[in-house]
Amino acid sequence: MRLSHRPSLDPAEYAYEHRVRTRFAETDAMGVIHHANYLLYLEEARVAWLAEVGRNYAEVRDGGIDFAVIESFVQYRRPLHFDDVVAVHLRVGHTTRSTVQIGYLLAVDGEARATAVTVHAAVRPDGRPVKLPTWLSDPAFAGPAT
Amino acid sequence: MRLSHRPSLDPAEYAYEHRVRTRFAETDAMGVIHHANYLLYLEEARVAWLAEVGRNYAEVRDGGIDFAVIESFVQYRRPLHFDDVVAVHLRVGHTTRSTVQIGYLLAVDGEARATAVTVHAAVRPDGRPVKLPTWLSDPAFAGPAT
Amino acid sequence: MRLSHRPSLDPAEYAYEHRVRTRFAETDAMGVIHHANYLLYLEEARVAWLAEVGRNYAEVRDGGIDFAVIESFVQYRRPLHFDDVVAVHLRVGHTTRSTVQIGYLLAVDGEARATAVTVHAAVRPDGRPVKLPTWLSDPAFAGPAT
Amino acid sequence: MRLSHRPSLDPAEYAYEHRVRTRFAETDAMGVIHHANYLLYLEEARVAWLAEVGRNYAEVRDGGIDFAVIESFVQYRRPLHFDDVVAVHLRVGHTTRSTVQIGYLLAVDGEARATAVTVHAAVRPDGRPVKLPTWLSDPAFAGPAT
Repeated sequence: MRLSHRPSLDPAEYAYEHRVRTRFAETDAMGVIHHANYLLYLEEARVAWLAEVGRNYAEVRDGGIDFAVIESFVQYRRPLHFDDVVAVHLRVGHTTRSTVQIGYLLAVDGEARATAVTVHAAVRPDGRPVKLPTWLSDPAFAGPAT
Repeated sequence: MRLSHRPSLDPAEYAYEHRVRTRFAETDAMGVIHHANYLLYLEEARVAWLAEVGRNYAEVRDGGIDFAVIESFVQYRRPLHFDDVVAVHLRVGHTTRSTVQIGYLLAVDGEARATAVTVHAAVRPDGRPVKLPTWLSDPAFAGPAT
Repeated sequence: MRLSHRPSLDPAEYAYEHRVRTRFAETDAMGVIHHANYLLYLEEARVAWLAEVGRNYAEVRDGGIDFAVIESFVQYRRPLHFDDVVAVHLRVGHTTRSTVQIGYLLAVDGEARATAVTVHAAVRPDGRPVKLPTWLSDPAFAGPAT
Repeated sequence: MRLSHRPSLDPAEYAYEHRVRTRFAETDAMGVIHHANYLLYLEEARVAWLAEVGRNYAEVRDGGIDFAVIESFVQYRRPLHFDDVVAVHLRVGHTTRSTVQIGYLLAVDGEARATAVTVHAAVRPDGRPVKLPTWLSDPAFAGPAT
């Protein structure tokens, strides 16, 4: 288990915010968003963040690097409901030579609903680990300017 | 619109039956299986049927032919619920040089819940149409022996 | 089969446009958006349209009317890919006392990728059909002003 | 973070095994099963296990207890592919008054592909915590007979 990042409940601790509106198809018979769908919101936020910082995900992949998800962790604090607009706050956490942890806070109207961490390995198309691109270590990604 | 097959409500009119148990994740806040998930059951039934008739889907694809879905139609007659065991009845309908229609009846405990048709085009990996494999025209696939 | 609406390839024939960006999770091993996910885009567009015309979906449901999907049809014309921004054009088609057909055109950069129709029945929470709300017959929903 | 269970790589350490065949719809454009779908396999295994031990999930819910997922963790060790038959091994881990940890090993042909832990809280329909049913503490669920 590489997971070590402890995601903060304070939006000010994050470097980027992406908003996603939940879909009706993502609800379940308990009337809330099914827990598996949170991982989709995290991924959508990562893609939007990469585009924002000029690292289009498709281009990154074309450049010969995939970011394989090697661990995922979600803590579900309060349910999400249909049509909620979820602010997905994101920041880079701990990095190693070829892995990066990303922390997330999911909030609705300023209320924390979930926190999460994903761990990614930079890999070649054949699956072998490769050195993390240096731009990922930009301190700006690890939280707000101070 | 190529869709012309009218799927029968009589299980005896079908060539193959595949059973799938609905998942909790496939329900929605109305307490029933979300309508988009029916397409997953149809696909799972097609894959099982291809394996049954000795045409493993992965091998078919490795042989250079994809079956692109070009049309889908579902008629939702009565809801499916969590943990239902759905009998997906399947048969080949009308074929042309490069397309095939597949008809479906979805039933639970003998009660029709939905009917459906998917239309597929045989295509090369580059997307160009190719002649339908001859084995798909086996009359045995178009319904029960009479 | 109630489906009768023939969706136009001309965006000008539609009353509303909603944009959705495809997710990586929605791709499949053929490298394109899996065909079942198109139904999610249609639903998201319906919800956005209802909100736009002041008929919040949650409120409509709280008012005692559900719109059950009773038929769906999708014609897949050209594939969608990851990160495509899809313009989902929508209009009301044929209505009966308790059903409404909605037509869709999905386009990327002005190029048609799919057309679709969903048929909905207005039902009470117990599933019984109920008269379609009159506001759904607003001619403005059936296409552009002429 | 309640998560503390460390799932074993040894199938013999698990109390129950459920088999699930991956779907084509669950693949992504990297040609492997998308990471979010693993949570669906875990849930399907839990439901099958509950049925096996005579605790039908629908009945449990009708009895006034939901098992809300409050944390999920997945470690992706080697990819799953389309049409893989995944053995989902499951066991009860640590329990508290109102929470239970469940550990999982996902293997294909005896090769570990992923490990996972979900943490569940027993809650009333209104979301308030309730005492875990005593049957969940059956030592038989926490691993093989010794």
